[in-house]
Amino acid sequence: MCRRTASLAGAARFRLTGGMKPGPRLTPLAASLPATVPFVGPEAQERSRGRLFAARLGANEMGFGPSPAAVTAMAAAASEAWMYGDPENHDLKQALASELDVPAEAIVVGEGIDALLGYLVRLTVGPGDTVVTSRGAYPTFNYHVAGFGGTLHEVPYRGDHEDPAALVAAARKTDAKLVYLANPDNPMGSWHGAAAISEAIEAVPDGCLLVLDEAYVEFAPEGTAPPLDPTDRRVIRMRTFSKAHGLAGMRVGYAIGHPDLIGAFNKVRNHFGMCRVAQAAALASLRDPEHLAETIDRVEAARVRIGEIAAANGLAALPSATNFVAIDCGRDGAFARRVLAGLIERDVFVRMPFVAPQDRCIRVSCGPEESLDLLEKALPAALKAAG
Amino acid sequence: MCRRTASLAGAARFRLTGGMKPGPRLTPLAASLPATVPFVGPEAQERSRGRLFAARLGANEMGFGPSPAAVTAMAAAASEAWMYGDPENHDLKQALASELDVPAEAIVVGEGIDALLGYLVRLTVGPGDTVVTSRGAYPTFNYHVAGFGGTLHEVPYRGDHEDPAALVAAARKTDAKLVYLANPDNPMGSWHGAAAISEAIEAVPDGCLLVLDEAYVEFAPEGTAPPLDPTDRRVIRMRTFSKAHGLAGMRVGYAIGHPDLIGAFNKVRNHFGMCRVAQAAALASLRDPEHLAETIDRVEAARVRIGEIAAANGLAALPSATNFVAIDCGRDGAFARRVLAGLIERDVFVRMPFVAPQDRCIRVSCGPEESLDLLEKALPAALKAAG
Repeated sequence: MCRRTASLAGAARFRLTGGMKPGPRLTPLAASLPATVPFVGPEAQERSRGRLFAARLGANEMGFGPSPAAVTAMAAAASEAWMYGDPENHDLKQALASELDVPAEAIVVGEGIDALLGYLVRLTVGPGDTVVTSRGAYPTFNYHVAGFGGTLHEVPYRGDHEDPAALVAAARKTDAKLVYLANPDNPMGSWHGAAAISEAIEAVPDGCLLVLDEAYVEFAPEGTAPPLDPTDRRVIRMRTFSKAHGLAGMRVGYAIGHPDLIGAFNKVRNHFGMCRVAQAAALASLRDPEHLAETIDRVEAARVRIGEIAAANGLAALPSATNFVAIDCGRDGAFARRVLAGLIERDVFVRMPFVAPQDRCIRVSCGPEESLDLLEKALPAALKAAG
Repeated sequence: MCRRTASLAGAARFRLTGGMKPGPRLTPLAASLPATVPFVGPEAQERSRGRLFAARLGANEMGFGPSPAAVTAMAAAASEAWMYGDPENHDLKQALASELDVPAEAIVVGEGIDALLGYLVRLTVGPGDTVVTSRGAYPTFNYHVAGFGGTLHEVPYRGDHEDPAALVAAARKTDAKLVYLANPDNPMGSWHGAAAISEAIEAVPDGCLLVLDEAYVEFAPEGTAPPLDPTDRRVIRMRTFSKAHGLAGMRVGYAIGHPDLIGAFNKVRNHFGMCRVAQAAALASLRDPEHLAETIDRVEAARVRIGEIAAANGLAALPSATNFVAIDCGRDGAFARRVLAGLIERDVFVRMPFVAPQDRCIRVSCGPEESLDLLEKALPAALKAAG
């Protein structure tokens, strides 16, 4: 039996002693994959820093918190946590169907958009298949594509916007199975109006599916989302309770699409994967539109405030239709990374785009006044230290 | 846009109108899969019956409920649900490592054993690969194997026990990637002592992995589980907070194995898949061993009571090391299915094994006195109606 000493010796010891026995055989694909992490969580950063963050503004979480009705529903559901959640997500799907004016058969609920993206990639992408996305867009989608052996074809941003026409053209040229587009976009916060998105949908080549990630759509101006049309086989829409509903920690996402495609998720999804308490939280949040409206107002005010903080430091905040703001640090990626490090050092958790030229920015999530006060205080020093 | 009328017309309408556009291309494997459901949930049965169950004794949930400390922790964590859970599950893994006396690197936490089985199958099984299990064992494991294109080789039970020697022999003969064994077993409640399991581990052929599902191990007699040994590459152990900890609805499972294999889960898992509230619940439950001990005592008493109810009806309860009891209805599967239907009709939710000869039994989960009172009352009538 493995004793505590082994624990202290760490994993290295296992490679020695375990090496005597042959291990299980991974698939060639699994063997080829790196054990990557799409994002390092703030808790891991806190552990390595040995100090907690004072302001949590890096993961586009909703620092204003969930609906009090959702909190009450979670507390009430806690004592029922001994029961599995309904694997059909019936009540939540019915409520969404009514809210969105689409049939329930056009909706699948899953463990966040992350899980739904994984299921979708699994359904459609295998070794040799091409998938198109923007260079610097959502890494977790790329993680899934790589994880199922797909080949990513990346299209550059066009002036801090994803480029729907170029994405669709690339999908046509590469015979892509999927083309990913976030509207509004993460990490830049930019967006396209419904007309541009509808045009892209019209141009999706036969046999390709547009994955329209609308995680942030509640924060966008009216007219950003084209009408939902579940008769259209060319697009699937991804939405979430993680952002505007403030329930990131509960893992509730949903997708809207043609019922044939939505039904196919039943081939592969973790049927009993949804937390019962999460189902209750999402349902309660959906029934509290006042809180949602209030959250959206507060996010709008926070965006303005972040813009003011940026301006006070001689920096430009990019226009945003999301609950975060990209601040252009005015120089190159190396400089922005130093600014980011300076903020982290000053206990302000923020993140930034991965690729140039977007990596000239840092990305700040909207949050409560106190958190933005800390940002306001830390930014001048971080900029100064960044030289 | 899809109007409410479409909702009323249902999915059929979509096949008509949506048929005009080509759909996305599923992978050949995905296209070949049926849209099956491993289990129909009790809520779906309630909806189709138009009536709630009065006793929920079918899904091996823990009707005695979670630890009050876990309920308190969930209520407290609810207001923090706006934050993603720690993707590393650090605190829970550390607590498990300390509890189990293994290094944290030997533990992976996931969204229930169901999700962990899915990740494991994905890591190891592709089209053309063979997997060995018992005929009539856990269907969700089979669902994952089929879902990744594996070929199932099924070994019969041996007198209501899974047959470790035959399973391992079949794994050798078929060059299997995985061999699945639940100890204690579901759906029969039978078990093997540690020596038999250790023997099976010793006999696992090179390149094969024994998937030892120990979901019910807390209910089993001392000496059922062989010592944990994460230097051993031949076996992975699966455990859960769904059963003895009464947290089925929170989706927290974990696996213990060689750190190389455990590390490989990071290649494919949904890193941000764990609910923050679930992490808090599991941690609090782990810190309440008194409640766990009390639950195990109550389960033992309920097993005795179920045995008495069976005996009072001239039926035999099989010995059980789990939180459920298989009741031998004394005739064939058709008869047991009628008994089951009679119980369901009388608002008592129970399930039963799928295959002969185990399907001569119904499977009753342990639960509170009131639920067993209802079973006691319904069983004679159900037996009589079954003829």
